[in-house]
Amino acid sequence: AGKSDHQPAGRCVDFPVSVVLPAGGTGERTGLQTPKQFCSFLGRPLISYTIQAFERVSWIQSVVVVVAKENTDLMIDIIQRFQHGKVRVVAGGSTRHRSICNGVLALGEEGEDEGRSAAADRPKVVIIHDAVRPFVEEDFLYKIAMAAKEQGAAGAIRPLVSTVIATTSEGYLDHSLERAKYRASEMPQGFTYDVICQAYQRCSESDFEFGTECLHLALQYCGTNAKLVEGPPTLWKVTYKRDLAAAESIVKESLSRSACVITGASTGAVTLADALQKAVGALDMELDVIPDLTGDNARYLLKEWNFIQLSVGYSCLSEVEAINVMLESESKAVGVLRLFLWVHLSSTDEPSVSGRAAEPAAIMDLASAAKLRNILLYGIQLHQSKRWERSALRVAEIASALIRDRSPALVGQLLQA
Amino acid sequence: AGKSDHQPAGRCVDFPVSVVLPAGGTGERTGLQTPKQFCSFLGRPLISYTIQAFERVSWIQSVVVVVAKENTDLMIDIIQRFQHGKVRVVAGGSTRHRSICNGVLALGEEGEDEGRSAAADRPKVVIIHDAVRPFVEEDFLYKIAMAAKEQGAAGAIRPLVSTVIATTSEGYLDHSLERAKYRASEMPQGFTYDVICQAYQRCSESDFEFGTECLHLALQYCGTNAKLVEGPPTLWKVTYKRDLAAAESIVKESLSRSACVITGASTGAVTLADALQKAVGALDMELDVIPDLTGDNARYLLKEWNFIQLSVGYSCLSEVEAINVMLESESKAVGVLRLFLWVHLSSTDEPSVSGRAAEPAAIMDLASAAKLRNILLYGIQLHQSKRWERSALRVAEIASALIRDRSPALVGQLLQA
Ligand SMILES: [Mg+2]
Ligand SMILES: [Mg+2]
Repeated sequence: AGKSDHQPAGRCVDFPVSVVLPAGGTGERTGLQTPKQFCSFLGRPLISYTIQAFERVSWIQSVVVVVAKENTDLMIDIIQRFQHGKVRVVAGGSTRHRSICNGVLALGEEGEDEGRSAAADRPKVVIIHDAVRPFVEEDFLYKIAMAAKEQGAAGAIRPLVSTVIATTSEGYLDHSLERAKYRASEMPQGFTYDVICQAYQRCSESDFEFGTECLHLALQYCGTNAKLVEGPPTLWKVTYKRDLAAAESIVKESLSRSACVITGASTGAVTLADALQKAVGALDMELDVIPDLTGDNARYLLKEWNFIQLSVGYSCLSEVEAINVMLESESKAVGVLRLFLWVHLSSTDEPSVSGRAAEPAAIMDLASAAKLRNILLYGIQLHQSKRWERSALRVAEIASALIRDRSPALVGQLLQA
Repeated sequence: AGKSDHQPAGRCVDFPVSVVLPAGGTGERTGLQTPKQFCSFLGRPLISYTIQAFERVSWIQSVVVVVAKENTDLMIDIIQRFQHGKVRVVAGGSTRHRSICNGVLALGEEGEDEGRSAAADRPKVVIIHDAVRPFVEEDFLYKIAMAAKEQGAAGAIRPLVSTVIATTSEGYLDHSLERAKYRASEMPQGFTYDVICQAYQRCSESDFEFGTECLHLALQYCGTNAKLVEGPPTLWKVTYKRDLAAAESIVKESLSRSACVITGASTGAVTLADALQKAVGALDMELDVIPDLTGDNARYLLKEWNFIQLSVGYSCLSEVEAINVMLESESKAVGVLRLFLWVHLSSTDEPSVSGRAAEPAAIMDLASAAKLRNILLYGIQLHQSKRWERSALRVAEIASALIRDRSPALVGQLLQA
């Protein structure tokens, strides 16, 4: 997230680029019933993270997602639920290459509906990616797009992780390959529209049926030797169930790097916010402290922030509710589960009896309502005392754990710092 | 865990097998400062999980861990802390092959100290594995050991995940390999002691310096074509930071499949245990319900169980403390963080004022003490009411989340069901 903010000047692509995202896999290897591109973590299917990675890139014009017919409705639902723009759904073929070919042909037809000539709207470069590689970054897409435009074809490579060996038909070692001469071919790959179209026009039925490598088709049928570009390890493909856990941990880590602290007008809350800001620094987290979400600060609602509201003295759960309503109205645009922490500093050492009894139930009710609106709400209570710094550290530890774990089972709990 | 309980009859290896575990890697690829085999999750370094996988196999006689000199003390400390038996530490060489060779030579010297002839104690088969592949299972080790004894050499293979391509020196595609003819060579590998010794005696300095594949040395210097055995996906190598997260999630899942519920003599607790047992079934978890940990039930202390103690009516935290002390005395043998949940069903709808105020502080103090003894202690409170089933479901959800997340920051919290 936020990568595009640091985009160096002049790295913008000045020719039309579109994406074909084959998502027809059946996912036997995850050991799960759902094809892995549709498996969800943190309330969102994998393919939606991948689409988001392309949506964030301003110079990408459109994304064609190619899905098996039986998943078309599911895919359209995902696009609506997470408000994906620039995306079209196209029906897949019986093999990976037939699906990609359908996607490329669909790109050629764009604009035809509006009566313009199809040729004018055709992309110069087509990027082909996998739905199950959600962490592709803008700077690498840039490299692939530029190399594809220059060479006709370009592909991501990675060093081999294991030695590759040739086997005899009886299952014995024949020989091992010299690692330095070979690479793993990964995604994304890029092609000029003309090269990828020609490759699919000229290739054989057998290529459509058994071929695995678009780069190979471009070489064989267009004489185009693809430029190979070494990609980062984040290009890895979510293949097994453990990869879903790894992907979830990467998203959790990126979601838990920062939070927005809302203090209201209370000076006590500002002091607490200061102490928290220092304490979370040691936990590799950053806090932005603001008085409220009005005016310019409304922009915090538009990004994937976690929110921490501080209340000092009398607890006022109606404030919590008000912010939740604001969050809800913007949550759809962000498309993720929001996390909201209410931190209450009670002003006396002795908890008031009525307060202690009422709050846990009230915050549980609020959290149940919030959960229906895709907001995870938790409470943390601390008591005004002389051991102020230690308490702030405890709040920071608990807040950091809640933000990192995002556990739906613990919403509505009022934790003690 | 517990795999060996289901070992089919007759699958026992009747010749001596030992393991060499090279653990000298520096782990640049994880992006972490600590070499990845020494990175910890759930309070335990990766290499300790790998060693445990071999310790569980009754027919493996000894494990030689080969570490860089600067990590010898760290490794000895890990062996003592997690009470690993059958393990020796040997100093590594400057390359992977020199390290493995040191490990193999050390196996040949076993028994010499005790005045027996070294030859008598030499293993028939040596298994070579990676410290960063913690999930190797007994049945696969059996296959490798048997194939190695029969053929002289055997190695794990996996299908290629990506297409492998040959590159030109200028960074362009030269050609792609036909996937079906090639495999990824993985670990473990097995060799007869004679084959692996001969291979290292005969191989060149250049092999020691640059070679990556023991199977290749066995072929080149002993004429032994290794038998290749397809392994399960769990053999994968922890390489990147995301792999540590994946490994952690696999261990968490295996640790959270079951728990032991202690009811005491109370009939109310037995009824609650019944309701919980049904509720966790839907969450893919199993509960063993027992009255206490005396007699035959003391065996629960010896394995990696999670414990849930039920209290009905008056809460008796001294019981909690008593069980914690028992857990502590056995924790060293198990070598993992133990998880202990105290579930308190208060018998009235109205919480007693003194109870509400006292318990959270008391359980927090208990938990702080328990944490120093490697026990993660949490509390869950529910109130006797007519909506009994719903409450049991909530307890099950919260318990399941706590057991799965194992969050150190949340110990001592008294959660409300
Ligand atoms: Mg491919
Ligand atoms: Mg190897």
